[in-house]
Amino acid sequence: MDIIFSPDHALHQSPGELNSGEFVPAFEKPERAEIILSRAKAVDLGPVIAPDPFPAEHLTRIHDPRMLDLLRTGAAEWAAQGRQGGAFPFTFFTRGFRADRVPQTLEGRLAWFCFDAGTPLTATSWQAIESSAHVALTGAAAIAQGKRSIFSLCRPPGHHAGSDHYGGYCFINNVAVAAQYLLDQGAKRVAILDVDYHHGNGTQQIFYQRNDVLLVNIHATPDQEYPYLLGFADEPGAGAGEGFNLNLPLPWGTDWAGWSAALEAGCQRVAEYAPDVLLISLGVDTYIKDPISQFKLDHAHFTLMGERIAKLGLPTQFIMEGGYAVAEIGVNAVNVLTGFEGR
Amino acid sequence: MDIIFSPDHALHQSPGELNSGEFVPAFEKPERAEIILSRAKAVDLGPVIAPDPFPAEHLTRIHDPRMLDLLRTGAAEWAAQGRQGGAFPFTFFTRGFRADRVPQTLEGRLAWFCFDAGTPLTATSWQAIESSAHVALTGAAAIAQGKRSIFSLCRPPGHHAGSDHYGGYCFINNVAVAAQYLLDQGAKRVAILDVDYHHGNGTQQIFYQRNDVLLVNIHATPDQEYPYLLGFADEPGAGAGEGFNLNLPLPWGTDWAGWSAALEAGCQRVAEYAPDVLLISLGVDTYIKDPISQFKLDHAHFTLMGERIAKLGLPTQFIMEGGYAVAEIGVNAVNVLTGFEGR
Ligand SMILES: [Zn+2]
Ligand SMILES: [Zn+2]
Repeated sequence: MDIIFSPDHALHQSPGELNSGEFVPAFEKPERAEIILSRAKAVDLGPVIAPDPFPAEHLTRIHDPRMLDLLRTGAAEWAAQGRQGGAFPFTFFTRGFRADRVPQTLEGRLAWFCFDAGTPLTATSWQAIESSAHVALTGAAAIAQGKRSIFSLCRPPGHHAGSDHYGGYCFINNVAVAAQYLLDQGAKRVAILDVDYHHGNGTQQIFYQRNDVLLVNIHATPDQEYPYLLGFADEPGAGAGEGFNLNLPLPWGTDWAGWSAALEAGCQRVAEYAPDVLLISLGVDTYIKDPISQFKLDHAHFTLMGERIAKLGLPTQFIMEGGYAVAEIGVNAVNVLTGFEGR
Repeated sequence: MDIIFSPDHALHQSPGELNSGEFVPAFEKPERAEIILSRAKAVDLGPVIAPDPFPAEHLTRIHDPRMLDLLRTGAAEWAAQGRQGGAFPFTFFTRGFRADRVPQTLEGRLAWFCFDAGTPLTATSWQAIESSAHVALTGAAAIAQGKRSIFSLCRPPGHHAGSDHYGGYCFINNVAVAAQYLLDQGAKRVAILDVDYHHGNGTQQIFYQRNDVLLVNIHATPDQEYPYLLGFADEPGAGAGEGFNLNLPLPWGTDWAGWSAALEAGCQRVAEYAPDVLLISLGVDTYIKDPISQFKLDHAHFTLMGERIAKLGLPTQFIMEGGYAVAEIGVNAVNVLTGFEGR
């Protein structure tokens, strides 16, 4: 399986995040991608390929151009104001504020577009963000050209970023950009299976009213877990998209028995949809020792996960999302891929 | 002029706030109220009176009871989870999340109800929050009983808190609670004049569709200043409330000439409305040396402000809001009150 990877991911390194009322080191850090890459090389998964450049229109197909402008220039504007560290909002859009007027100032745009205090923009973040999207697009292009499987080793991750909001360590929604690219290249139906521990709220928001993308999400219930405000079972899609969103929320403490039953249901829905291509939002924060998560999957279960996905028999692009047990993130992520390959 | 004050305000002391991407000491601190009280005593403004208790229904007339529950019990739940410091959200509601489902968990409720990373709940915050509302209610009751002027020395402040969201150092909207109380006691028309440097977004959201409360706001334009997302000139009120909201946004650098012209326009609108009673959201962060603000009012201008307000000839309740030049907050706030009294 080809691995698409850019060392530019390391240009995004968060100075920290607000967690439990304290400013703490970021969980989402460059070592994550490097350890996955090392493991992929160790098992000889496949060649490591650099991403190609793509025009910005592939990003504006999914995201508000004003949000992309902020991601690209926000850190420089922040520094020009004489401020240190990452560009963080300190206040946020909520109910009761103007929904019809996007602010012009940096502070206002941060408040408008960003929804948490853990996704800062640093001086070189944009290069990493854009490279991550290009890693996804390069993988999608390979699938469009007939590859049966691809691993897009994206970092930063993407599935919490919506069309006009970013947060949860995510800036550009890589899997959504890849799905749109595949549709633009001629696919009629794309399925996304999100196996990250957290609900992929951004991906859901982006495709919620569309029937050309089926989204299946297996995740910790928002009744207990981040992002808290989306990802419930009663979110089937809306308008033309009704029936094309399937949330499979699971309680804290879910083990492989419970998780694999949801995977089976999700895979059956994917099979029924009969997509041209399958995208996997691959988060491995379902791992039992993940520091911010509460599921109980172990190394071998990730292999079984890949095996079940392979049985769908679809061209499949894996796109890296979360996973914060850094020392073991490589084994867990690559086990899915070798499981998929049946080895 | 009677001063309503409770030493319980000091039970709310923020452990810090996210500012420019760093966790810094809070600007909104107990010394603010103590220094105002000292100055009021020094000029012999009037007797210092403790607040009376009031039933919770006066708070639920303005705020979602579930938000009040969070304010009352959130810190204890936070501590019960073994967490230190204040109860802060780390993610926030935005566009794209469920607007029809209030979460049950502590993290979810913090995300839902709070809109910034600078308004934490500590173990004893609720006592201060409730006492501040009672300071406002006690003052309103005195006005209802015929007093011509009252100073409710509220802390924490209130004007950024909306019916179902809190932030900006504000939890309960004290001036809105007082206005509602006065209406409930028989007033037909209440006017609120908000002279704080920042737009009183919460007060606006609460009364935006009502014609029994006229709200006039003089503040730094949200094009440049917090709260960024409300307080523009084109917000006249809606439905029955159309024409009953007047925003007078001013640019950074505004001096007394510019500010007093807005005050004149605001006072004329109040006079035209001919309210039964006038409430002043009294922030003195318009002061030239305020550390987080960009207006240029000096000590003597606060006296002139009080003189102009007095010319309206209305029963007037002053309710303390912002002001962060702590050493001089007493002189500035009390100058408004002695100016009002013509001495
Ligand atoms: Zn995750
Ligand atoms: Zn203020």
